[in-house]
Amino acid sequence: MNKFYVGILQFKPLLLKKEENIEKIISFIEGESPDLIVMPELAISGYFFRTKKEVERMSERIPDGKFFNVFKELSTRRKTAYVIGFPEKYRGNVYNSALYITPRGYGVYRKVHLFYEEKKFFKPGGSLNSIFRIKNFKIGVLICFDWIFPEASRTLALKGVHAIAHPSNLVLPGLAQLGMRVRAIENRIFTITANRVGIEKRGKKKYKFTGRSQIASPAGEIILSFDENEERLKIWEVDLKSTEDKFITPLNHVFKDRRKKIYLV
Amino acid sequence: MNKFYVGILQFKPLLLKKEENIEKIISFIEGESPDLIVMPELAISGYFFRTKKEVERMSERIPDGKFFNVFKELSTRRKTAYVIGFPEKYRGNVYNSALYITPRGYGVYRKVHLFYEEKKFFKPGGSLNSIFRIKNFKIGVLICFDWIFPEASRTLALKGVHAIAHPSNLVLPGLAQLGMRVRAIENRIFTITANRVGIEKRGKKKYKFTGRSQIASPAGEIILSFDENEERLKIWEVDLKSTEDKFITPLNHVFKDRRKKIYLV
Repeated sequence: MNKFYVGILQFKPLLLKKEENIEKIISFIEGESPDLIVMPELAISGYFFRTKKEVERMSERIPDGKFFNVFKELSTRRKTAYVIGFPEKYRGNVYNSALYITPRGYGVYRKVHLFYEEKKFFKPGGSLNSIFRIKNFKIGVLICFDWIFPEASRTLALKGVHAIAHPSNLVLPGLAQLGMRVRAIENRIFTITANRVGIEKRGKKKYKFTGRSQIASPAGEIILSFDENEERLKIWEVDLKSTEDKFITPLNHVFKDRRKKIYLV
Repeated sequence: MNKFYVGILQFKPLLLKKEENIEKIISFIEGESPDLIVMPELAISGYFFRTKKEVERMSERIPDGKFFNVFKELSTRRKTAYVIGFPEKYRGNVYNSALYITPRGYGVYRKVHLFYEEKKFFKPGGSLNSIFRIKNFKIGVLICFDWIFPEASRTLALKGVHAIAHPSNLVLPGLAQLGMRVRAIENRIFTITANRVGIEKRGKKKYKFTGRSQIASPAGEIILSFDENEERLKIWEVDLKSTEDKFITPLNHVFKDRRKKIYLV
């Protein structure tokens, strides 16, 4: 019962080709049934939008539409949970969101810390409450640039998550991979970073997405990793139960040893 | 005027040989005049005490005694600031402290997060206010295991430090080095970790200290590093002024982008 399998799908979404991207994703994951599959940020839309109109055209409402229904059907049938990034239309705004959907329910995380020009296209999310259950485990969700704020992972860890699913579109080489290793160590949780690959251009500007998706353990080990270019699903067993032990030595509990009264926030 | 030179002394203190250790330190640093030299935790006493009596025998009061006066004289003469770990006797308790002494003044940081059996020998410090000035720059002090709590570095960074001096006696291989790289990135400061080398035994128990002292830049680069065994002083120029720019992209300020209202502490 404590066995828990996590999949990461690293691939190259095509900018503004929602139908194709969803089909491509399905073809990668259709035959697999781990407990959880984490996919990149904005996986159905691509990243480097030119206009707000483009973002709106790619955006989806939850729980309406084909995107939601495809993953709901798949989750129910395969008994697998999915975390996948998409542009979300919600109450007149567009968010850089991740859908989490399990055989029993669903929810949305809206990216709290927007990176660079995302601020022109998206409204930032207003909470770090995106936590769902699979078996007896709690999984939290962050997106990409959220990694650089230790407070974000800490908040989810203090709320009891065993792992953070971390859909990403990383462009700074290797920094987030390093950072999410340290988030795993300092909170004694697993971090699951699903990054994309490929290049997107807009005029003379160019984003190279850096791949190297990974799972980091509470000991700071990279227990699953991808290279910079590969497009595939990989699955690995993860001992989520072990994260309930917050002692890094017999006398050091990474939460209880905190000296909250003397920290500045 | 903005040129700033930092030295790290990595060496092997001998357990309970205070006089010898101080002489050894002096012989390493005597001829050098960078702006700042950072030395290991408990550099004058060694680490692996058997009894509280041993710790007390090694402890020093500030500003009394030979230890303080040797470094005060040296600092005034060489116009160099020092950060050095030592067991401190203060108001009837013993702390795992670091003295910081400049040509103009001095202070003590008392380690806030004690590691493992240090809890049997030392009282924890009660504040994160150990910040001193050299030229126009502010240097904060943390000791060793403080690294694992992102709140500690964040607190000093929010108080405006350009760099954190980090005397250490690290035994977990490579984790703190990784962690202090990420503390540098997430706060856009420099971190200066001075670790010790050598092995200390107590009965069948053994600590191997892992060396690999380093300076990490706000970009996450290791700009100065040591190997696992070498005993020496190394000096490097550090652009502390650059840390005043907290923008990691033109639209992302690592402090102002924080969403304090939604973080748990």
